[in-house]
Amino acid sequence: MKIAVIGAGSSYTPELISGLLDVSEQIDLREVWMHDIDERKLQIMYGFCQRLVKDRFKLFETKDFVEAVRESSYVVFQFRPGGLKARKLDEEIPLKYGLIGQETTGVGGFAAALRAFPVMERYVDSVDKHSDAIVINFTNPSGHVTEFVLNYLGFERFIGLCNVPINFLNHLASLLSCEMEEIFVKYYGLNHLSFVERIWTNNEDVTEKVFQMLSNFESPELPSWLILSVKLLMNPYLRYYVSTQQMFKKIYEEGTRAEKVIQIEERLFRKYETENEIPAELSQRGGSLYSTAAARLIRDLTLSNNSVHIVNTRNNGAIANLPNDYVLEVPCLTKANRVLPITAGSADPFAVGLIHTVKMYERLTIEAYLKKSKATAIKALLLHPLGPRSHNVRELLEEICQANREYFELL
Amino acid sequence: MKIAVIGAGSSYTPELISGLLDVSEQIDLREVWMHDIDERKLQIMYGFCQRLVKDRFKLFETKDFVEAVRESSYVVFQFRPGGLKARKLDEEIPLKYGLIGQETTGVGGFAAALRAFPVMERYVDSVDKHSDAIVINFTNPSGHVTEFVLNYLGFERFIGLCNVPINFLNHLASLLSCEMEEIFVKYYGLNHLSFVERIWTNNEDVTEKVFQMLSNFESPELPSWLILSVKLLMNPYLRYYVSTQQMFKKIYEEGTRAEKVIQIEERLFRKYETENEIPAELSQRGGSLYSTAAARLIRDLTLSNNSVHIVNTRNNGAIANLPNDYVLEVPCLTKANRVLPITAGSADPFAVGLIHTVKMYERLTIEAYLKKSKATAIKALLLHPLGPRSHNVRELLEEICQANREYFELL
Amino acid sequence: MKIAVIGAGSSYTPELISGLLDVSEQIDLREVWMHDIDERKLQIMYGFCQRLVKDRFKLFETKDFVEAVRESSYVVFQFRPGGLKARKLDEEIPLKYGLIGQETTGVGGFAAALRAFPVMERYVDSVDKHSDAIVINFTNPSGHVTEFVLNYLGFERFIGLCNVPINFLNHLASLLSCEMEEIFVKYYGLNHLSFVERIWTNNEDVTEKVFQMLSNFESPELPSWLILSVKLLMNPYLRYYVSTQQMFKKIYEEGTRAEKVIQIEERLFRKYETENEIPAELSQRGGSLYSTAAARLIRDLTLSNNSVHIVNTRNNGAIANLPNDYVLEVPCLTKANRVLPITAGSADPFAVGLIHTVKMYERLTIEAYLKKSKATAIKALLLHPLGPRSHNVRELLEEICQANREYFELL
Amino acid sequence: MKIAVIGAGSSYTPELISGLLDVSEQIDLREVWMHDIDERKLQIMYGFCQRLVKDRFKLFETKDFVEAVRESSYVVFQFRPGGLKARKLDEEIPLKYGLIGQETTGVGGFAAALRAFPVMERYVDSVDKHSDAIVINFTNPSGHVTEFVLNYLGFERFIGLCNVPINFLNHLASLLSCEMEEIFVKYYGLNHLSFVERIWTNNEDVTEKVFQMLSNFESPELPSWLILSVKLLMNPYLRYYVSTQQMFKKIYEEGTRAEKVIQIEERLFRKYETENEIPAELSQRGGSLYSTAAARLIRDLTLSNNSVHIVNTRNNGAIANLPNDYVLEVPCLTKANRVLPITAGSADPFAVGLIHTVKMYERLTIEAYLKKSKATAIKALLLHPLGPRSHNVRELLEEICQANREYFELL
Repeated sequence: MKIAVIGAGSSYTPELISGLLDVSEQIDLREVWMHDIDERKLQIMYGFCQRLVKDRFKLFETKDFVEAVRESSYVVFQFRPGGLKARKLDEEIPLKYGLIGQETTGVGGFAAALRAFPVMERYVDSVDKHSDAIVINFTNPSGHVTEFVLNYLGFERFIGLCNVPINFLNHLASLLSCEMEEIFVKYYGLNHLSFVERIWTNNEDVTEKVFQMLSNFESPELPSWLILSVKLLMNPYLRYYVSTQQMFKKIYEEGTRAEKVIQIEERLFRKYETENEIPAELSQRGGSLYSTAAARLIRDLTLSNNSVHIVNTRNNGAIANLPNDYVLEVPCLTKANRVLPITAGSADPFAVGLIHTVKMYERLTIEAYLKKSKATAIKALLLHPLGPRSHNVRELLEEICQANREYFELL
Repeated sequence: MKIAVIGAGSSYTPELISGLLDVSEQIDLREVWMHDIDERKLQIMYGFCQRLVKDRFKLFETKDFVEAVRESSYVVFQFRPGGLKARKLDEEIPLKYGLIGQETTGVGGFAAALRAFPVMERYVDSVDKHSDAIVINFTNPSGHVTEFVLNYLGFERFIGLCNVPINFLNHLASLLSCEMEEIFVKYYGLNHLSFVERIWTNNEDVTEKVFQMLSNFESPELPSWLILSVKLLMNPYLRYYVSTQQMFKKIYEEGTRAEKVIQIEERLFRKYETENEIPAELSQRGGSLYSTAAARLIRDLTLSNNSVHIVNTRNNGAIANLPNDYVLEVPCLTKANRVLPITAGSADPFAVGLIHTVKMYERLTIEAYLKKSKATAIKALLLHPLGPRSHNVRELLEEICQANREYFELL
Repeated sequence: MKIAVIGAGSSYTPELISGLLDVSEQIDLREVWMHDIDERKLQIMYGFCQRLVKDRFKLFETKDFVEAVRESSYVVFQFRPGGLKARKLDEEIPLKYGLIGQETTGVGGFAAALRAFPVMERYVDSVDKHSDAIVINFTNPSGHVTEFVLNYLGFERFIGLCNVPINFLNHLASLLSCEMEEIFVKYYGLNHLSFVERIWTNNEDVTEKVFQMLSNFESPELPSWLILSVKLLMNPYLRYYVSTQQMFKKIYEEGTRAEKVIQIEERLFRKYETENEIPAELSQRGGSLYSTAAARLIRDLTLSNNSVHIVNTRNNGAIANLPNDYVLEVPCLTKANRVLPITAGSADPFAVGLIHTVKMYERLTIEAYLKKSKATAIKALLLHPLGPRSHNVRELLEEICQANREYFELL
Repeated sequence: MKIAVIGAGSSYTPELISGLLDVSEQIDLREVWMHDIDERKLQIMYGFCQRLVKDRFKLFETKDFVEAVRESSYVVFQFRPGGLKARKLDEEIPLKYGLIGQETTGVGGFAAALRAFPVMERYVDSVDKHSDAIVINFTNPSGHVTEFVLNYLGFERFIGLCNVPINFLNHLASLLSCEMEEIFVKYYGLNHLSFVERIWTNNEDVTEKVFQMLSNFESPELPSWLILSVKLLMNPYLRYYVSTQQMFKKIYEEGTRAEKVIQIEERLFRKYETENEIPAELSQRGGSLYSTAAARLIRDLTLSNNSVHIVNTRNNGAIANLPNDYVLEVPCLTKANRVLPITAGSADPFAVGLIHTVKMYERLTIEAYLKKSKATAIKALLLHPLGPRSHNVRELLEEICQANREYFELL
């Protein structure tokens, strides 16, 4: 079996490779192809990963996308259109308008999505032509991108993945002193806008028990009294919605995440050039358990075993009071070469309200992209709970368009 | 036929009575019963209205609710729990927290709804016991109250009415130089959160034409470039959502509407005591065409003719992409002693996002009332697009509860 | 305004022309164009109709479809592909297999539908190209054809009409001694498979009253005890479903309807050649009130008044427990150049069961036509409650295909 | 853990006990309680099963229902209200009216359901009061009973089981030379009215392959040409629908199944009295793999592993084009102490038609029971595709009521 990694110049790649090493025998992994448009990073990464893999499977690097994906079984998307430079602007520009500057949520995510769509169009088309591969997507905003690919491009073999769900399970497991696999959750929402309503370990409903010990889920901006009022465990990204002012202040004072990541990356790449082991600093990079999520998903899809993974895919009836065609982040069974959402009943009203609004924002953004329409982009931004309002939406949109003029154009 | 007016001490009442005079022959109106809990206002109004009505139908006043509604055919609810004093606080308190202070929208509407629910419970129960009447409700927040009565109290003969839709039609008619009756609109949403997507006069689709001449629909806070981006005519109350900062500033600087209304009311009541004609100042009171809306609705229900009225009732399939049980403001046929929503296809994504969120806020607020739960009230407020966030939600809720302790209690 | 009548050689045409004369002033009717592929009948009809119309509007005849429909406002489809000769076989063939032989219901309707589809494809395309006309369709099976045109051809300006609903209203009016216009019904179903669940005159619910006096709705094969068990007034065509054996016997013994109609037609055409008044025998031809239904629908669409007509169109939410895209026969408002179904709540379980099955049969038949597939045709026939079963389905299908080889082909 | 078997006097019981022996260690089974109202059969069975079980778990027998179910973890319902004597009449009476006589399908199933409902009401209530047990139901008609218990009694811990799905999987496994666990199917429908639309082994779609070798699924009344036309594998009970005449003839000529079963049972019980091993004749009794289905379901629920079982439960979104509240037979995940349907997309039109009709028949039958209404029973029977029509429905219903007067009464 062949796997392609697109955006393999990422500093995360060694972790992914390491994850693949863990499952390589089970899935009979023969070849991994590394692809990136940044030749320097690709070379460094390729060199480092070769030292990691040794000869447990064959490792290739290429700048030719088609060569990378041809006849592969899985393609991992982890590229970042515009790189950290663009991300930095995604985080900085909104701040000037008094808005949350974040790479996936709100206005920053809006720009990131518009950069991602044209690349997705090309890449997905090419994957479809040259392979029967399933795409595992980490490219952000991961859920928004999955909405675009499944519902607008009509490419079905595409699964949006994020490391938040696996970290939720990991936190729950540590809280309940059990294995992650023993936990089952009523989990639903959009990527970075998700909720846990109910928790079981084996056959025991431990929901109330968890609500009594929230240590792993609370923070100054997501305090336990708030979680107990809403009665839902919340994705950490929900802090932007429920504690908007505090989060704005925090970002404003601490500086953007992009700046820090750029520094971490520099240090990491210097080490990757020479070292043989994954540097400890990688943990500062974020993305905890991301490689575990990907490697296990690939393993369980391949084995067609009855594993449960929380991924982004069409609702398809799993959440009864949300439309079937919404791309949601929900628990799915890995079976028959696909992910099958497991029915879970209705979502809570608090979640329903936010999910609809952000989903409509997502679709309006996609529509703005497809029609190249500034008017529709204004409509999308005005609808977003963290977006601008009439007094500054046009100015902000102009600045975003200007900053991203290499990547997309709205008229 | 007998009609009861609850909250008949309102300064609006003469207009309603005047509207009923216009249709009294067509509907064979024999008796109108005026009820209020404020004896002084009731007496003044009763005196004035008697001079207006002369003997065209019999007019009665009573403080006994049951006497007022017994064997009536229609009951008009236009009472205001807590009066203008409470409204003033609804408008003032949010301002302290940097939030929109408005009597129906956002935090102010939240307090108003909680004051209205217990009164609705008693009144609706009594109407049901002592009559087969249909209730026409103006009590604010009119849509939220209708959601409560239809979906939680299960009393079906209840229609939520507002003067915004008839004013929309009136503006369109003046713009298009035709009669209101010649206009048909694809109109949907919640009360004070509604949209017009498409407009016909007779068989002609004049949507684009209207979008070329928006004079009657634009304002500094709802500018035409914004309407043209969203491509929906918007309820004036949507200014709070799309121009939040400007509207906040406006209210903050101009003072609350309640203060002005209190002054207008004082002047009006002095005139009502002595004059024989409706004073010109009543137009300053707001509520343009409200009596026309009510009188025509009563007339057309009575005649069971095929008229179309835009009212608040259960969706019931009219808007295909909104749940059947949502109370919406939509065009309905008056037929068979009820209002029957007319099917209209799907709502626009921009509207869908806001409608779901505010409907979920409405239901959480109702749930907070029914469970007397501060936690659920926090949940409701955090979800509202114009509500507080985690740093001040608890303090604000305490102040609202304290200010309204005569009317409701949350634990 | 111009109206085109397609299939104007029908013996019914004078009645339609007569109906149009009644409304011609209201709708400013200038020209009626008569089209048929049977030149002899067309000539006779044209001559007769000219004598009827005199000069109240201009009457034209043509064999050129495009000339007939060009720039028309309405097109009435009342052609019969294959004529009465084909209808006779539709009625006779099933009898050999012990099955109901009827021109619209069951196996006979199956053949008729397959003959109608290719003609609809051509005609609808041509109407679309050469006019903005609304098509009023009487061509049988009218509901099945409307399903095909709206959901498969995607031509939206198409309304399926039948005279059963107006006769229902007429019977009710005579039973209740009131005008048809005073009656409102909860009516739903498919064409020739419809039900009345509730009846109002003005604001009074007279449902129970009607169920006490069923004289106009009962027959030996639809006895009142059965109607009272089901608690729904039923379309006379439901006799084929609830009294299958009796209806089979009746048809078998009485001979097919086609034979009688052929004789009636002969007599009628002889009279049409010479007489100036509509012959009394036309009432034997069936189709009571058909022209009233058509003329009033055209009038009310044109006036865009708020009239209610029961027609075949997409459900669109009107019946809550049936899919939005099913073409149903339901009360609609004539407004904005279209028919808008009025929301009516849920259908009764008895109706729901039959409607779904026959709708799925309709779609499978359409699919069989589009794929030219005998296998799918077998699937459709096996599903129909009045269709053949495994022991004779293939033989029957062969005979139908053979008999209709000029009109359609399945492989 | 304690398991109760209700209807333990059944000749099937040894197989169930044998199945439980296979899994007893995995689920830590301590006690099995056998209950029946037929003391003689219960004694014989208890004696035989004790010899089978030896001391691998404790076996008890009781005539006290509460004692049997108290504090149990699972309760297996396999009782037959009225016994084989009533079943015999269920099969014989319809034949007199020219209708299929079958114990679960059509008119026979109608009588069986009406006998089962009152017993279900009492038993389910008692299980609820005295335990937290999950009920595994085999009592026929199993799906109809599950509809009644879940949707009308509101008891949620109830799973309808049947041996048809496991036999489907078993046939597929033998056809494809693989293990049952390697097969995944898009399976849906009602109990005894179910379909397989798509088949995978591991990640391979083998649907077309299976349709090329139908040997295990065809029969004279379900011939391969028919299966290939419908393009769905069909539950053997669908023979009654697609080959009604042949099946009628077959039953008529071969005599009822009940008669044969009575003879088999007699022989079996004689052997059970004395022998130590399960007699070979048990295989003639039918019910192949029934114990495997039950024992594995109990095991996998207990282990809360991610197994997939095809059982009767509420759709809940699994089949997108069927209502969420229909009880369906669909693949479910055993997790969190319940069965969770796995989303599977839409059902085929052929299946949709039949499922709706028979579901509406089921609900009308339940309504007839709850209202004790013969009129509603007539409505139910007229709707059933295999039911009587107007010429004999009343006579047939009378005979059924008379024959079952000990068990239920309709007025």
